[in-house]
Amino acid sequence: MERVKRNERLGAMTRILTSENNRIHTLSEFCDLFGSAKSTISEDVDLIDESLKKYDMGSVDTVAGAAGGVRYRATMSKERVRGILQDLGRKLSDPNRLLPGGFLYTSDVSSDPNVTELLGNILAMQFYEAQPDFVLTMETKGIPLALMTARAINVPLVIARRDSKAYEGSAVKINYISGAENERIETMALSRRAVTAGSRALIIDDFMKGGGTLQGMVEMMAEFQAEVVGIGVMISTAQPEEKRCKDAKSLLVLQAIDRNTGTCVVEPSKDVLVD
Amino acid sequence: MERVKRNERLGAMTRILTSENNRIHTLSEFCDLFGSAKSTISEDVDLIDESLKKYDMGSVDTVAGAAGGVRYRATMSKERVRGILQDLGRKLSDPNRLLPGGFLYTSDVSSDPNVTELLGNILAMQFYEAQPDFVLTMETKGIPLALMTARAINVPLVIARRDSKAYEGSAVKINYISGAENERIETMALSRRAVTAGSRALIIDDFMKGGGTLQGMVEMMAEFQAEVVGIGVMISTAQPEEKRCKDAKSLLVLQAIDRNTGTCVVEPSKDVLVD
Repeated sequence: MERVKRNERLGAMTRILTSENNRIHTLSEFCDLFGSAKSTISEDVDLIDESLKKYDMGSVDTVAGAAGGVRYRATMSKERVRGILQDLGRKLSDPNRLLPGGFLYTSDVSSDPNVTELLGNILAMQFYEAQPDFVLTMETKGIPLALMTARAINVPLVIARRDSKAYEGSAVKINYISGAENERIETMALSRRAVTAGSRALIIDDFMKGGGTLQGMVEMMAEFQAEVVGIGVMISTAQPEEKRCKDAKSLLVLQAIDRNTGTCVVEPSKDVLVD
Repeated sequence: MERVKRNERLGAMTRILTSENNRIHTLSEFCDLFGSAKSTISEDVDLIDESLKKYDMGSVDTVAGAAGGVRYRATMSKERVRGILQDLGRKLSDPNRLLPGGFLYTSDVSSDPNVTELLGNILAMQFYEAQPDFVLTMETKGIPLALMTARAINVPLVIARRDSKAYEGSAVKINYISGAENERIETMALSRRAVTAGSRALIIDDFMKGGGTLQGMVEMMAEFQAEVVGIGVMISTAQPEEKRCKDAKSLLVLQAIDRNTGTCVVEPSKDVLVD
């Protein structure tokens, strides 16, 4: 087998490690690919880890045990998380985003690939330890963030629908209560094939006001006998304080929209910044 | 400024280059970060490029001109593209995926982060030269693929809805014809804020049968005076041959579903594999 020099390995190795976040690679995988000894590959991994850590770009950790190996996670310092959320909060506090009816326009942000990838990495940091088997969201606006969170944790994404579809096969359909001020009954459907009993769900959505949709997803998971191990959202509103869904971690808080002065304030949430 | 050794730079540099596909970085950006001379950084870039190319993991190219620099693209060989599409075709040809009504269950695949990231990279390879300003899709199932394509090209994603929403502001709403066998009139809505006149749209969806939804998106872009520079889908059906939307490039073709024998055949499409 051809031996490859360190300088010629590091680029490819960094790419392999970082392209699939949270995936465990055995050292043998790299030994075979590069024709190098395990001790050499192990030194490479240490170099890559140091380099990434030094510039706050995540780390490569060693996972012990039979299914062990090395694993990259795009973690970041609390300072970097704070900076990202402050920038995003400022962007969302732009008065031009205020819409008739007291709504805030967030669709450009919630479907931006770079923003959702960063936020997905931040959400994943909150929920790695909960070890979800999949991420659940409900159509439509939360899908990009949920996909990027699933990507970061390296698990599948499952999408609940407003109604069942012939191309998703037989489905479980539930009613849930939505609307912070005016209660409405809404329906939510999820393909029977999508979730296995006993599996662990991480629920992700882009926006929480009353918390009804999130609570609907919690109830949907009970129908599937799946366990909810975490709930995360991009933005939650400060009002109403009492949410239908408890225990959701939010990245940002929409403090207030003042329709008279045309101002709104979106700030980093304490949920992810307190030690 | 502290000087950083090559071995300590390569990991971080590879991560910076590969984490934002198709983004141009100036060499000065790296000189400042690592405290190195331009010639040194230039050698680093060459090493990373060689390492990535050698293992079919894309390339770092130099872009000339005033806004020039170096840019990573997750391109891959035709052989690797064929392998990925063949594997996916086999996975989708599983008889257990057949649903009542002659539908094929694809939702697990179309929302898988790793699958959609690979397919997004492959779709991006088809459309880099078309230089889209944004990717457009219609809710729901195509969103993950469209997001990953937008991520690969490094442009925003825009999501058309079945109906307008108060939290997306004033919208353009159109009627379009859907359904391959039974024509139906459907509606599609898109926020006025989402698209600028004169911009270039790449339309992406997960599935094309009659092509009505894609053609609806083409007509929506005409309403916004935006130019459609490309159309890509994950799977198109061989029948009907005549689609409402012409010129869509498909990654896979659903050749046939035989409900009597319970078989279906999904194969790589010629659209992306012919030179």
